[in-house]
Amino acid sequence: MIGIDWGTTSFRAFRVTRDGTIRDRRISQRGIMNVPDARFGDTLREEIGPWLAAGEEHVLLSGMIGSRQGWVEAPYLPCPAGLPDLAAALIDIPFDWAKVKLVPGLSGTDSSSVPEVMRGEETQVLGIPTLMRSGGLACLPGTHSKWVTVQEGRITSFTTHMTGEVFAALRGHTILGRMMRDGPAGGVPFEAGLRRSADRGGLLHHLFGVRSRALTGELSETDSPAYLSGLLIGHEIRSALGQTDGKAVVQVIGDPDLTSLYATAIAACGGYAERHDGQAAAYGLAQIASLAAWD
Amino acid sequence: MIGIDWGTTSFRAFRVTRDGTIRDRRISQRGIMNVPDARFGDTLREEIGPWLAAGEEHVLLSGMIGSRQGWVEAPYLPCPAGLPDLAAALIDIPFDWAKVKLVPGLSGTDSSSVPEVMRGEETQVLGIPTLMRSGGLACLPGTHSKWVTVQEGRITSFTTHMTGEVFAALRGHTILGRMMRDGPAGGVPFEAGLRRSADRGGLLHHLFGVRSRALTGELSETDSPAYLSGLLIGHEIRSALGQTDGKAVVQVIGDPDLTSLYATAIAACGGYAERHDGQAAAYGLAQIASLAAWD
Repeated sequence: MIGIDWGTTSFRAFRVTRDGTIRDRRISQRGIMNVPDARFGDTLREEIGPWLAAGEEHVLLSGMIGSRQGWVEAPYLPCPAGLPDLAAALIDIPFDWAKVKLVPGLSGTDSSSVPEVMRGEETQVLGIPTLMRSGGLACLPGTHSKWVTVQEGRITSFTTHMTGEVFAALRGHTILGRMMRDGPAGGVPFEAGLRRSADRGGLLHHLFGVRSRALTGELSETDSPAYLSGLLIGHEIRSALGQTDGKAVVQVIGDPDLTSLYATAIAACGGYAERHDGQAAAYGLAQIASLAAWD
Repeated sequence: MIGIDWGTTSFRAFRVTRDGTIRDRRISQRGIMNVPDARFGDTLREEIGPWLAAGEEHVLLSGMIGSRQGWVEAPYLPCPAGLPDLAAALIDIPFDWAKVKLVPGLSGTDSSSVPEVMRGEETQVLGIPTLMRSGGLACLPGTHSKWVTVQEGRITSFTTHMTGEVFAALRGHTILGRMMRDGPAGGVPFEAGLRRSADRGGLLHHLFGVRSRALTGELSETDSPAYLSGLLIGHEIRSALGQTDGKAVVQVIGDPDLTSLYATAIAACGGYAERHDGQAAAYGLAQIASLAAWD
């Protein structure tokens, strides 16, 4: 089968055997924001045409391609949900060259009944063998980081943290950015930011410390971005781990640069991280496809 | 004497008698950012010329006019500091039509040894009779809110929270702002944001709820700005009150619209607010002037 994690800014396709082995992959920048005039069918044919010509018939999509801005809007499936629930709720998409189905996103609420939604992360999380076997906690860092709890093979709840987007807004559009120049993402200043996130006073106060430490020369222009990043990621992780009642092993899924930073940060905040890359999406897609009714 | 609270965006001058009674006042938009070519002397003469002609000889300035971007940069005085300490540390400014002195700002550290600075707020805080008599906690809300502790007539410590600036960056430059239109600053959505700030999950998670509640229709476009404002102010206040060991009476100083919102918020977070306006600056300036050596 062909599994595709089709997000806002990236397109990642995997050609996968029945047992989950990845035979081939294609990564491009043709995320839904980069597809002109909503020509999703044409884009799909251009990307995976050779695999279809080689005899693949089943294509399963996940991610923001199922949003209002995507190809077909798929209603969210409510939590708790596992692989069979997702497989039973696939949406058919008309396409002349293969059978195409879409994995719906999930909806839920946090512990205070505030709504939560995801598209794509559910497929990655359910593709991780450790979580399917024993349950646990996953973190998908990014613009909007997701923290996902799995119990008995189903996603039971999840929360979103706007860490990446808040970093960009603070750096680009507040006084903090005026004293910053590009520097290394990790290292000593990142770890100083992580430690700072454990102090009293709250995030809105800690942010001012980025400026005051720069003003007094404690923090250089090139170290300031990593310090701010550590501060925000530290707040995210401490809040997320504070809700785990001691279950502090975290499966971190994503781009290697980002999972490396988060692994450092989770360790600094008292947790233990195991890292996963895009393969998780391929595994999840293959398993959902194998459970689905294709005719 | 003439006392002037000369900030970044506003200029507020008071003509005050020896016993602290305000005889006259002038408010303008000629904050230091709005004075072209650093013509501070000319601006001062234009604003208070008539009072000088009427015989006033002593002019005391406080605020960002003493910063690097202002008229003369005054070194920060370290905490703890009270009215006599400030009066003994005034900076003389050459001016042909009167004796002009400048109140220095204060420096300190928070409970984790991170540097803190203020310019102007010290004069307002020390102008409040209740704080001078019995000590306590003051809050000066704004772009960078200050929370100030007074003990035995001296400012002993303070913290800054970037609440106002973070609100503007989030509204103007994140996905949250895309679902917002101007609406009332207070009311039901503001109070819902205040309550939300007490939930588990941390600020970075609560921010996503502004979006998810808008997506599900729980929050209208015109209610969203007040909800976000309540969320941020609630986080600020809960963090600040969390450090007071039960001293939860707060003297709130500033613009009436803003102190009204903060009074509501402080009450919702378990504190009790007493409100003060610009008169606090006039009182503080008059008292420092009366302790100063003018010859």
